[in-house]
Amino acid sequence: MAGIFGVSSNEDCVKDLFLGTFYLQHRAQDYCGLACSDGKTFSAYDTHRGLMRQQFPKKVLKDLKGNFGIGCVTGDRQPVSVLGKAGAFIVAYDGNIINHDELRDALLMKGIGFTGFIGEGEVHDSAVIAKIISSESTFERGIESLAKIMKGDFALVALTKTGVYAARGWGRKHLILGKKNGSYAVSSESNSFPNTGFEIMRDIEPGEIVLINEEGVNHVGRLDLNPKKYCSFEWIYTAHPASVIEGKSVAEVRINLGKALARRYPVAADLVSPVPNSGRWHALGFSMASGIPHIEVFVRYDYSDRSYTPGQQPDRDVEARTKLIPIKEVIKGKIIVLVDDSIVRGTQMLTRVRVLKEMGAKEVHARIACPPLVAACHFGKTTRCNDECIARRMPIKEIQESMGLDSLGYATVEDLEEATGLPREKLCLDCWEP
Amino acid sequence: MAGIFGVSSNEDCVKDLFLGTFYLQHRAQDYCGLACSDGKTFSAYDTHRGLMRQQFPKKVLKDLKGNFGIGCVTGDRQPVSVLGKAGAFIVAYDGNIINHDELRDALLMKGIGFTGFIGEGEVHDSAVIAKIISSESTFERGIESLAKIMKGDFALVALTKTGVYAARGWGRKHLILGKKNGSYAVSSESNSFPNTGFEIMRDIEPGEIVLINEEGVNHVGRLDLNPKKYCSFEWIYTAHPASVIEGKSVAEVRINLGKALARRYPVAADLVSPVPNSGRWHALGFSMASGIPHIEVFVRYDYSDRSYTPGQQPDRDVEARTKLIPIKEVIKGKIIVLVDDSIVRGTQMLTRVRVLKEMGAKEVHARIACPPLVAACHFGKTTRCNDECIARRMPIKEIQESMGLDSLGYATVEDLEEATGLPREKLCLDCWEP
Amino acid sequence: MAGIFGVSSNEDCVKDLFLGTFYLQHRAQDYCGLACSDGKTFSAYDTHRGLMRQQFPKKVLKDLKGNFGIGCVTGDRQPVSVLGKAGAFIVAYDGNIINHDELRDALLMKGIGFTGFIGEGEVHDSAVIAKIISSESTFERGIESLAKIMKGDFALVALTKTGVYAARGWGRKHLILGKKNGSYAVSSESNSFPNTGFEIMRDIEPGEIVLINEEGVNHVGRLDLNPKKYCSFEWIYTAHPASVIEGKSVAEVRINLGKALARRYPVAADLVSPVPNSGRWHALGFSMASGIPHIEVFVRYDYSDRSYTPGQQPDRDVEARTKLIPIKEVIKGKIIVLVDDSIVRGTQMLTRVRVLKEMGAKEVHARIACPPLVAACHFGKTTRCNDECIARRMPIKEIQESMGLDSLGYATVEDLEEATGLPREKLCLDCWEP
Amino acid sequence: MAGIFGVSSNEDCVKDLFLGTFYLQHRAQDYCGLACSDGKTFSAYDTHRGLMRQQFPKKVLKDLKGNFGIGCVTGDRQPVSVLGKAGAFIVAYDGNIINHDELRDALLMKGIGFTGFIGEGEVHDSAVIAKIISSESTFERGIESLAKIMKGDFALVALTKTGVYAARGWGRKHLILGKKNGSYAVSSESNSFPNTGFEIMRDIEPGEIVLINEEGVNHVGRLDLNPKKYCSFEWIYTAHPASVIEGKSVAEVRINLGKALARRYPVAADLVSPVPNSGRWHALGFSMASGIPHIEVFVRYDYSDRSYTPGQQPDRDVEARTKLIPIKEVIKGKIIVLVDDSIVRGTQMLTRVRVLKEMGAKEVHARIACPPLVAACHFGKTTRCNDECIARRMPIKEIQESMGLDSLGYATVEDLEEATGLPREKLCLDCWEP
Repeated sequence: MAGIFGVSSNEDCVKDLFLGTFYLQHRAQDYCGLACSDGKTFSAYDTHRGLMRQQFPKKVLKDLKGNFGIGCVTGDRQPVSVLGKAGAFIVAYDGNIINHDELRDALLMKGIGFTGFIGEGEVHDSAVIAKIISSESTFERGIESLAKIMKGDFALVALTKTGVYAARGWGRKHLILGKKNGSYAVSSESNSFPNTGFEIMRDIEPGEIVLINEEGVNHVGRLDLNPKKYCSFEWIYTAHPASVIEGKSVAEVRINLGKALARRYPVAADLVSPVPNSGRWHALGFSMASGIPHIEVFVRYDYSDRSYTPGQQPDRDVEARTKLIPIKEVIKGKIIVLVDDSIVRGTQMLTRVRVLKEMGAKEVHARIACPPLVAACHFGKTTRCNDECIARRMPIKEIQESMGLDSLGYATVEDLEEATGLPREKLCLDCWEP
Repeated sequence: MAGIFGVSSNEDCVKDLFLGTFYLQHRAQDYCGLACSDGKTFSAYDTHRGLMRQQFPKKVLKDLKGNFGIGCVTGDRQPVSVLGKAGAFIVAYDGNIINHDELRDALLMKGIGFTGFIGEGEVHDSAVIAKIISSESTFERGIESLAKIMKGDFALVALTKTGVYAARGWGRKHLILGKKNGSYAVSSESNSFPNTGFEIMRDIEPGEIVLINEEGVNHVGRLDLNPKKYCSFEWIYTAHPASVIEGKSVAEVRINLGKALARRYPVAADLVSPVPNSGRWHALGFSMASGIPHIEVFVRYDYSDRSYTPGQQPDRDVEARTKLIPIKEVIKGKIIVLVDDSIVRGTQMLTRVRVLKEMGAKEVHARIACPPLVAACHFGKTTRCNDECIARRMPIKEIQESMGLDSLGYATVEDLEEATGLPREKLCLDCWEP
Repeated sequence: MAGIFGVSSNEDCVKDLFLGTFYLQHRAQDYCGLACSDGKTFSAYDTHRGLMRQQFPKKVLKDLKGNFGIGCVTGDRQPVSVLGKAGAFIVAYDGNIINHDELRDALLMKGIGFTGFIGEGEVHDSAVIAKIISSESTFERGIESLAKIMKGDFALVALTKTGVYAARGWGRKHLILGKKNGSYAVSSESNSFPNTGFEIMRDIEPGEIVLINEEGVNHVGRLDLNPKKYCSFEWIYTAHPASVIEGKSVAEVRINLGKALARRYPVAADLVSPVPNSGRWHALGFSMASGIPHIEVFVRYDYSDRSYTPGQQPDRDVEARTKLIPIKEVIKGKIIVLVDDSIVRGTQMLTRVRVLKEMGAKEVHARIACPPLVAACHFGKTTRCNDECIARRMPIKEIQESMGLDSLGYATVEDLEEATGLPREKLCLDCWEP
Repeated sequence: MAGIFGVSSNEDCVKDLFLGTFYLQHRAQDYCGLACSDGKTFSAYDTHRGLMRQQFPKKVLKDLKGNFGIGCVTGDRQPVSVLGKAGAFIVAYDGNIINHDELRDALLMKGIGFTGFIGEGEVHDSAVIAKIISSESTFERGIESLAKIMKGDFALVALTKTGVYAARGWGRKHLILGKKNGSYAVSSESNSFPNTGFEIMRDIEPGEIVLINEEGVNHVGRLDLNPKKYCSFEWIYTAHPASVIEGKSVAEVRINLGKALARRYPVAADLVSPVPNSGRWHALGFSMASGIPHIEVFVRYDYSDRSYTPGQQPDRDVEARTKLIPIKEVIKGKIIVLVDDSIVRGTQMLTRVRVLKEMGAKEVHARIACPPLVAACHFGKTTRCNDECIARRMPIKEIQESMGLDSLGYATVEDLEEATGLPREKLCLDCWEP
């Protein structure tokens, strides 16, 4: 997963560039990077291990300047600077190449080598993408060439000296346009906009290539890509609740899913609680439809997550164990509905239920805001391995029992259609109906 | 403000020491430190600028070992290692010395100098405390000597080679004892206990000095200090909602305050929202008593706060501006009750109200979970300067108008008494009735 | 300038790799890097800004292992890892490409792009070399392809999973082979050998390509390159005095040049002193031939040079001013012969003469161990700019006067022929006879 | 060992402060620190692990300003800032307290504690000194009090807001005064002066206390200390050859010692070589008196020494092995006189002789510029342990044989008297006549 952002500003873009990228931090926490151009040259540019707030304090930001910029938060080192047939550009992408090895070998056979390999001779997706785009005579042709031969999906932004290109593949990777007073921005999520003052213009369409510069948002190409699909998981979990995707508020879609769960699986309970933060809006919907009070039985400890310094391996086990603090006084003797967005391996849900029972909960009923996950996501969401999915290995009744739950209910694909207002043909459902 | 923790374990204490201290991180974010002893010597010990999770990764923790340990999160460099008349010890405290200059000068006149001054020749409170304690022949006498001459209040833990001393002053600085299987802990807040497995034993009483070691919690002295007072602000804002103070659950006291506000200042509204995170439990109480849905109109962006690297100055203005993201779809056209714990200068509330109105809120009514703040806190909470308090400079009606609020209501001292179940004589009310 | 080293060892090579590379530190101080292979994969590999001793302490070295390794000290970031048609390799080179832009553009036209550009879209020589070699189906063909189209000169080492390739261009960049007990090494200078226990085998010949592995030194190719030339400046200044180049001891060649100067420009003086360290062996020769005592009037301060930490810009002006301390007691009232290897701009000699006169020297006579420099070196030695050469701008008599010297004598090309025992056709004399 | 420096300048002192301290780097390499005052406050001040050039680059130096400053290179963390009865000052010293434990315990008994202990409760000499001085009502009294009760020796500089105090104990720790244009400096060695433009004024006398400020060098006290002794080892090894101590040039004293050795132990040899750098000037004297050519058979590799980064433990064994490179061409078949300043344990000399013999030296004759060391130095020079001295454990003849030397000769105390021109009563001879 990644978050990408691009901006063309009528003044220096660095402040908007930083904040616009920063508000994508929930999408990835391993690397982050910013690059700028003032129309003549690229200014100081760097990719860092760690979080935006740590890696780009004021004293670093002051080395960046220019009207055009791109930024990213990613799982690998991005953005990548490239000198190619069409000149110099700097690119960041959100996506994945399913046929990576095939594309890499084809490049090697053409005599196109890679510098900076890792391990025994591996290269990142970003290196393959950079090589394919840079071997064509224009940026648009490079993108076309990429879309023609790659399997997977992508969204990307590319900074040249005079503007920012943005392109979207089949649709699973989102990009949205914003504007304010002669400045234009593109982002993985509209969450970049409220605190930077941009207004939503529209989503970039699947297959669309635009160039953003002082003249605005220029349409420069359209790829013929089929079928087009949106990623359902963005509304369910990935995106920030303040974002709007394809015209649908993420917070509202989640409230809708919670309401559907309350109608589909009613239960007489003392309180409904999310697993914070991911289940919070779903739980709110459940509370609104059922009338059961919405009280958080776990308090999230803000300092538990990923505040690691560069180079330091995050200890994700310690993170998971330490980030929620149960409130015994609220839990004891209560019948509790616990709402979360999804269950992958089930280990976290198991831990939460055990804690609640130990603290004296009378009953615990779980409600899950999407259908049972039965397949790995080929596009980098949820899990990379089929066998990790607990719902692939056992029936729902068994999951319930293994976790010590008093009941367990999942949302349905129909609930997703109703909550988003989109027909199932437009939604990627590979996680549930592979 | 600070958080202090001490532990005597029947095995190596480092894991409990780290977590017990870590769960006090909400009390201070500038410095943190850990120190251990194995009964013979002190093991690697260090005070760091920054957060616990950043500064004490596994590779640092492995240099610490021993059955006894203390830890702290503080605003100045602590703990302090001291070699004194009674031997070597390492001390951390939460508190403040109102007559700092007087005590420092008395020490200098006795020929007791300070190494490591700052600025033109300033020394920290911790240096003064260390000198006073270390000039006496036993640790207990050192504490007595301190309590006799200092003005202010304090709680402290001190590690010797064979145990952990803990002492509490007049009562405003809390300390609570916990135990599990032959291990004993003391902490500023019981929030250190749920995820480390300790059970609450009891609060350390004002004036009490204990020694924690393999024999348990040993009473070693009692200071004759009057009057004894608890800090009301701990329940209202400072402490973590999962903590229990003097037998009162912080979460429940906040719900009680929110209920009192709903009864005292009813309003016909579409939704009640906290300023997250500080107003969350108060808002929940308001919602429970009024029946108005509890929906958060701002989503807190977890990555906005204090993830700065050591040595880097936090930019608190940027933090304040960036940490909340408004959800337009939820705000537009609504009558909103906004609940927060307190108002000091009023600048943050002003900003929040302005954003809500810009996003289309029909009305905004503020409810504040404590009385109007009119005085600086001599004990280091709220503010250091009388004139910063907006409620000292203008009447409530004027505050409401200057902020563009449709109504404004504060809790009363009677509400505090009722919510905590404690009579006003036991509560420090200096902020409201100086 | 750069120093490169490669080794195939019959046990783990890291210790020899570190030391062998370390003893080339005098050739470059900006970057350094090491890479290893154990026959199956490449182990931890890194390029660092700074000096070998700082950048590769024990704790870093322990992450490297394998029987094959290469190392370098360079002015740009090397070695470079490359995945190409013929597989993965890691390359380091000493050299320069005069027709860099032409080669880069030809690669771009073929659709071969570069990742990691600098500035507006510049790439390093190392990137161009890596691309050319990696576009061919074998390593030997890659080198041939490079030699066919490049102008300039080079020596390089390349690590594959199963051995170390070494190749030498027209001759100006030296490479020498060593062996001990079944281990084989190749280095820019034999100075790598005395303290690692290697014995000199022979120089790699201009145009020769060898592969070093457990079977020894295997001849794998010969490039047809003409004319072949050795760099005279290696003996005069660049190489370490303990090195032997093309069978000639550097220390002895320098003594020979000093003797020639004493014969050619006799002077009745009290003492002969070098500018330390570069003039030390030349001055010794002058002393031996003239009988004038060899006393150093300046003491080099060891801590003055390039001990900067990574990322820190060296302040070469401060370095130049601070590195020599004059000894007044030795200088006062004396007639001094000051011997140095060469004069480029003349600013340093001017400073030295002025200090000697201020300290009371009666007369100062300069003797220079090579002919007057009149041209920039196209191969990266001496200077990059013709106009920097003081001897291009004014006659010798004028140089002498401008510096306040009492006399000034330069060595001749004939002195170089005699000192090295090599005919002028084998010596690159571009600096003096462009 | 340590080097200390102080300056009062008629303009900003930072440049002179940095360089004056830097030129003492040969005296200590573990820590370094600088402190300044502008007459009103102390400016940014810091003590660092590492070398001056690494730790004080321009960007750090720009945070320092003021007309008064002190600096030091030390083995422990100095300078130390102190707030005492007489106000705030910052102190650095060269010296050692033989009765450290006694003084520490006396302070503790008085109720004077130490903050910042190490290990189980140890404190540095600098902490003891700081406490003693700071307990008195004036700086002069503090020094008097120190001198009255301490055993050992010292020289120190102390920065107050309005000047720099300098004080010298019994004489083994040297201090010298310099001036230029209204600026005044004090240093452990006059080596601080040539490249900063200061002229030697005079040595501070044993027992003298001065205050340096805009009025010049003010005599403020004289301690009655006996007997007064100079450290002989400063001329033999410790001091820089460009320094002048008690009016005697270090370079000249060393030449004198070498001449004495040539006269006392003549030998028919092909060349005389120092162990660089410590034996260089002694070897020159030997060459001058004997007529045997002075050729260095080992070249010191400048990059071998102590360029470690902060926190990194220097590997002194690797340093010793790597720092000298033998030149086989010069060594083979020759009768060599090897001159060094002293022999402590003999391990280094043994290694050197072995290398020379392996490289084909016909004979090796060692000449040592001081008498056989038979006792540890109580003042921190040479060695801390009697038993480390090889000359304590075996007769000279046996030392010669164990090292494979063809002959071995030591200088005598009479040679020291003659070389320095000082009578034996004024020289500390504890190393040779304990």
